[in-house]
This record gives sequence, C-alpha cells and structure tokens, in this order.
Amino acid sequence: MLTVNVNFVSHAYPIHIGAGLLDRTELFAPYLKGSSVALITNATLEPLYAARLKAALAPLGKELIQIVLPDGEAYKNWETLNFIFTKLLEAHADRKTTLIALGGGVVGDITGFAAACYMRGVPFIQVPTTLLAQVDSSVGGKTGINHPLGKNMIGAFHQPQVVIADTALLRTLPLRELAAGLAEIIKAGAIADAGFFDWIETNIDALNRGDEAATAEAVHRACGIKAQVVAADEREQGVRALLNFGHTFGHAIEAGLGYGAWLHGEAVGCGMVMAATLSQQLGLIDSVTQARLKQLIAAAHLPTQAPPLGNERYLDLMRVDKKAEAGQINCILLKRLGAALVERVADHNLCAALTASVQPDAVVKPNA
Amino acid sequence: MLTVNVNFVSHAYPIHIGAGLLDRTELFAPYLKGSSVALITNATLEPLYAARLKAALAPLGKELIQIVLPDGEAYKNWETLNFIFTKLLEAHADRKTTLIALGGGVVGDITGFAAACYMRGVPFIQVPTTLLAQVDSSVGGKTGINHPLGKNMIGAFHQPQVVIADTALLRTLPLRELAAGLAEIIKAGAIADAGFFDWIETNIDALNRGDEAATAEAVHRACGIKAQVVAADEREQGVRALLNFGHTFGHAIEAGLGYGAWLHGEAVGCGMVMAATLSQQLGLIDSVTQARLKQLIAAAHLPTQAPPLGNERYLDLMRVDKKAEAGQINCILLKRLGAALVERVADHNLCAALTASVQPDAVVKPNA
Ligand SMILES: NC(=O)c1ccc[n+]([C@@H]2O[C@H](COP(=O)([O-])OP(=O)(O)OC[C@H]3O[C@@H](n4cnc5c(N)ncnc54)[C@H](O)[C@@H]3O)[C@@H](O)[C@H]2O)c1
Ligand SMILES: NC(=O)c1ccc[n+]([C@@H]2O[C@H](COP(=O)([O-])OP(=O)(O)OC[C@H]3O[C@@H](n4cnc5c(N)ncnc54)[C@H](O)[C@@H]3O)[C@@H](O)[C@H]2O)c1
Repeated sequence: MLTVNVNFVSHAYPIHIGAGLLDRTELFAPYLKGSSVALITNATLEPLYAARLKAALAPLGKELIQIVLPDGEAYKNWETLNFIFTKLLEAHADRKTTLIALGGGVVGDITGFAAACYMRGVPFIQVPTTLLAQVDSSVGGKTGINHPLGKNMIGAFHQPQVVIADTALLRTLPLRELAAGLAEIIKAGAIADAGFFDWIETNIDALNRGDEAATAEAVHRACGIKAQVVAADEREQGVRALLNFGHTFGHAIEAGLGYGAWLHGEAVGCGMVMAATLSQQLGLIDSVTQARLKQLIAAAHLPTQAPPLGNERYLDLMRVDKKAEAGQINCILLKRLGAALVERVADHNLCAALTASVQPDAVVKPNA
Repeated sequence: MLTVNVNFVSHAYPIHIGAGLLDRTELFAPYLKGSSVALITNATLEPLYAARLKAALAPLGKELIQIVLPDGEAYKNWETLNFIFTKLLEAHADRKTTLIALGGGVVGDITGFAAACYMRGVPFIQVPTTLLAQVDSSVGGKTGINHPLGKNMIGAFHQPQVVIADTALLRTLPLRELAAGLAEIIKAGAIADAGFFDWIETNIDALNRGDEAATAEAVHRACGIKAQVVAADEREQGVRALLNFGHTFGHAIEAGLGYGAWLHGEAVGCGMVMAATLSQQLGLIDSVTQARLKQLIAAAHLPTQAPPLGNERYLDLMRVDKKAEAGQINCILLKRLGAALVERVADHNLCAALTASVQPDAVVKPNA
C-alpha cells in the first residue's frame, strides 16, 4: 500500500493506494465515529462491490444505510442530491453519520456535496472506483452538482476523512473510462513534472492495458502532484487553477456537445491539445512540445481534434466557466513541459487556436 | 452607529447597528470586490426598500442583478434556491459577485446558502430587516434551506463580509414579527446574561412598542452575546448549542403544526417555557425562575402553552432535530437565569414536561 498525505492547514488526511484495500476493515475503522454509516453508490457498482465493502464494515457494528443512485453524469443534479437527503432523513442519519462514496467522480462529487450540506456538514470517505476519480476527483475536496446552465456550478469545498483507492477495482472499468483517467495523469505531468511526463510516454502501453504496477505508480505520482498543489491553495485562489489545464476548452466541448457525448477525460485530453496549440501560437512553447503532448494524448486513445461547434459558441461556453471573470476568459497555458501559468487571453487569440484545433473532418464521438 | 465584531479564527467581520444605515454607501463599499452585485430580496421588501439600497450602491458603479423571491418560509426550499442560481448564471455572475440579502431570516438563510454553493462559494452581505434577523439569523454564519422532512436540514456555515442592521427598517415590521424577534432577545439574556434579562423585564413595554433607543440597545446586547458564543465555537461543536435553548421544542411545534402556523420566534418563545419547565422538573431551577421566564414570554405577547400534538409525536419530531444523535434527544436546560447546559434527556422526563406544557384548552394559533 502506498500513501499520499494531503496537508491542509485545517485538516490533513491520507490517500491510500493499492490492490485489495476495499476489504480492509482497519482502513475504515478510525474514521467512523457515529452509530451509522451511509454507503452511497450507483446501480452499476452496487452489484460489483457493495457486498465486499459491507463485509469490510460489518465488524464495526454500525447501522448501514445503503443508497443506490442511477448511473451517469446526467444524474449529477439536484434531484439525485435530494434523493440522498430524503434517504438520510428517513433513516434518521445524524451529524455523526459518515457518508461513504463508492464510485467514480459522479458518485464522489455528489456524495461529497451531500456530506457538505446535510445538517450543514457530516464526515465522508471517498472510495474512488475509476482511474479519473483515483487520481483527480477524489483529491482536493471539490464537490458539487451540475446546473442546467453549467457543469459543477453548484458545490462546496469539503474534504474527506480518508481516500481509499483500490487499484484492483479498475479491472472492471471500461477501456474508454480508463483512457479518460489517463488524461488527468498526463495533465499532472504536463503542468508540474517533466520527469513524470517522460515516464508516462515510456509506459503508455502498460497503462493502456491496465498493468497493475504501472497503474499504481501512475496513481501515486499523479495524486502526489495534485495533493501538493491543492494543499498550497485549498480554496482555489491561485496555483490550484493550474490543475484546470485543458479544462476551459474541455468544459466547452462537454457543454457544447451535451454532457455525456464525450467523457470528461476525453474532453480534457482534447482540451489540453487545444491549450498547447494556443500556448504555441502565443509563443510560449515550441511546436515540438505541442506535438509531444498531442502524440501522448493520441497514444492514450484520447481525441486530439476539437468538435466543430463554431468559434462563437466556444467563446460563449468558455465565458460561463467558473474561471471566467466579468466575461473575460482565463486560460491555463503551458510554459514548457512541467510548468504552466494562468493568463487572460483575448478573443481573437482564442479564435485562432480554435480554428487550428477544429478540423472539418473531425468525428464528434471519439470512440464511436 | 453601534458595532459588534464577530471574531472567527479564519474570518472576522463587523455587525453595524443603527437607524438609516441602509443609505450609507461607505458601509457597503469596502466589501464589493467584483464587477457585479446581486441584490436578493422578497416581494414584500422590494417595493419598500430595494430602491434605497440600489441608490446607496449606485455610486460604486457595479452591475446590479436584482433577484426577487416570493415571500414566506414555504419558499425557503430548493426551488427558490435554484431560481437564484438560474438568475445568477443567466446574468453571468462570477466568483467575485457579492450577494446582498435584503430581508428577514428566510431571505438571509437562503441567500447565504446560495452564496456558499454558487461556484463553490462567493461573498455575501446581510442586510437584516426583521428583529429576529438582526439579533439572531444574520449572526453566526448558519445558512440553509428546509427539506420536506425537516427544517434547516440542508445548509452550510458561510460567514458574511459584513452585517448592516438598520433598526429604522423595523418600523414597517408587523407587530407579530416584532414579538417573534423579542423571543431571541429574551433567549440571549436567559442563557448568558442575567443582568440583560433583568433589563428586558424592565424595558419590555418599550420594546413592545418598538421604542428606537430600547430596540437599538437590545439588538446591540443580544448580538454581542450571540457573537461571543459563536466565535467561541464556529461549527457548533460545543457551547454554541446553548443558543438552541427553546429550539428543540420549538422546532417540534413548527414541524408538528406545519411550518407557518406559528412563527419561528413564537415557537421558540413557547419552547423556552417548555425547556424551563423541564429544567424545573429535573431540579435544575426553582419554580420562581420558571415563572419569571414564562411571565416575560407572555409580556412579549408570545405563546406560553404548547399545542397538543401528543407526546409521541413531539418525541418523534424532536428525534429528527439536528441536535439529536442516534435517536437520543439532547436538550438545552437552564441552570439559572443567565446560564444553560446541554443534556441528554430520557423520554419519560420529556413526556412529563410535555404533559405539563400542553393544556387541553390551548389555542393553536397564538395571535389568531
Ligand atoms: N471533484 C473534482 O475535483 C473533480 C475532478 C475531475 C472530475 N470531476 C467530476 O468527475 C465526474 C467524472 O468522473 P468519472 O470519470 O469517474 O465518471 P463516472 O463516475 O461517471 O464513472 C464512469 C462510469 O464507469 C462506471 N464505473 C465506475 N467505476 C467502475 C468500476 N470499477 N468498474 C466498472 N464500472 C465502473 C460508472 O458507473 C460510470 O458508468 C464528472 O462529473 C466530473 O465533473 C470532479
Ligand atoms: N441562520 C440562523 O442562524 C437562523 C436563526 C434563527 C432563525 N433562522 C431562520 O430565520 C427564518 C425566520 O426569519 P424571520 O423571522 O426574519 O422571518 P421572515 O424572513 O419570513 O420575515 C418575516 C416577515 O416579515 C416580512 N418583513 C421582513 N422585514 C420587514 C420589514 N422591515 N417591514 C415589513 N415586513 C418585513 C417578511 O417579508 C416576512 O413576510 C426561519 O427560516 C428560521 O429558520 C435562522
């Protein structure tokens, strides 16, 4: 088992990484204070893993409240959140009830937000089951839901008590989801660690086929990078924004095509190529660097060509992004491999990058 | 102008109290950082005070987003919250947009919660317009909405940048609402300051008729008590629970009769008499102290007899209270005038107090 410690001023917690952690009662035990626990998962994961997690919790003698959500980003909304609140209230969950999120980023984000708001805050534990959730969404305390007018627009910062990332759970993950997780791993290298970027280039085939050792190392290193960045900036006032590399473009793609057409990680993968193209056009990086990033994204089976939404629509969608301010669009740009910066970018520069990124023959569904 | 400073470790802010503060641009100016401001109020207050507040803000040159909610506790729910989010997103409000709550506890609670969740947190300002909001709900950072299964069950701790309590706004407040605010003022004296309790007894007639000087002094002293208690315990882990004196019974009354039948302050007023009766039955206070409290509640035109919901129903409703844990009911009890404590109370003791508090001839609508 590998462990990354996330050290916030107000609250520190460990991320445990390794195969078989789901069954280890002692990893959960220290964090369950109240008399009941709510296991929150979705309809896909419940038959796969809920029984094992319940068996791990059984020796602790807690009342178990199981809440099974429908599967999908489309359900990351108020209705599902309210369904959780109703179940918790019906079961008389109290302020010491710990919520456990067993699932990918959708279950993790919505459970974390439910924990942030239920009775003004109860503890929660993340058991991320996708590669994306293990390296990204379960780390850093961002929680939330979507609003019809924008993704992740409603939410809270709420840190988990512990993150338990069982890499063996990834064996049942669809390949397309695995690739989506690789996007965030590549991002960690690109913005913060050139050596790690090299390592990913070397090991991309092993990662693509889910090789256990390579995956564990990648999760560990990517988590470490994210933990360091978020601990330096819990509330996203500064350096944390760099983690959004590829995300401003990516969110526009997701929103423009309708959530679910592309996976978040696919949109981010393509968005990173777009941001690299923009960085090159602005003279920050050379074409070799841009090409290396594009090639690695392609090697991870992620899309590199932006869907043709029209530049105006892209700009509109990017202006609604949380990183926008007074209608100005801030972008994360590459300085070089391993270093990034935030910059306000003028519309005409964005249009140039969009035009270069959108090919007329681009297929809209990357893995269709 | 009087000022109370609320000193949280992470964030300190002032509460300004006085007549005519609504018009004073310079009280708002230091706190408006972004390019836009959202004024959130309700349909009753908008025609009374929105124009004045907008005139005060005008010199600051901010884009103004006005959001008018329907009036009433029944609208302190998800639908109204979502209406706020939709308006903010449509107006491209960003992370620096400050929300200003112009209203009573309902507008304040829902606006504060919207501010806590919109893009994971934006700043907000409280301009409380009821006596209850000036002495209680605008102080301490509790925000939230109701769930069909429980009042204030969904929410967050989110501190305002500043509270601007214009006591002249209380002139248009219905008398019944004024009395409801007095309940929380009496509570402050009862749990924390026997001298202030004496002062209220002496000045109750002046307070009942809204005498300006008496009201300002009462708001100042009650705010000061609340500010001290909450600063010692931002997240309600300990001493802050004492502020819930009268509230466990009160919430049961509100929920049992259906929200809106009794005002929150009326239910709390009656709940304090019930808690005093319980304290007396448990041997903590004598009958003289119980009678003094009951008499002052009556003198403030608040109900002192509990509605006959049936003991079982009371217990059920009290078990859903946020202060309940694993089905055990914690009560705030009086040790003497000016001092309170939290204690787990057995059901048979609660039943005895309920039986004594519920008179068969009790009228359900206190001011009907
Ligand atoms: N909070 C953050 O910081 C943050 C960061 C990045 C992304 N996100 C959010 O995360 C979400 C995306 O998360 P995701 O990519 O994990 O998607 P997801 O949660 O929708 O999971 C993807 C699919 O895989 C299934 N699945 C999950 N684990 C499985 C397993 N072990 N075996 C078989 N199937 C499995 C799920 O049921 C789902 O159908 C988005 O909503 C995004 O906004 C949040
Ligand atoms: N956050 C907290 O710590 C806290 C504490 C106590 C109560 N509360 C909440 O506060 C709410 C009750 O607040 P409230 O008693 O202020 O009720 P309210 O907000 O419903 O206001 C009472 C009525 O008076 C009207 N009104 C307000 N100001 C007026 C004015 N100056 N002139 C004329 N009419 C005016 C309102 O439109 C409303 O009809 C409840 O939802 C309760 O849960 C919160």
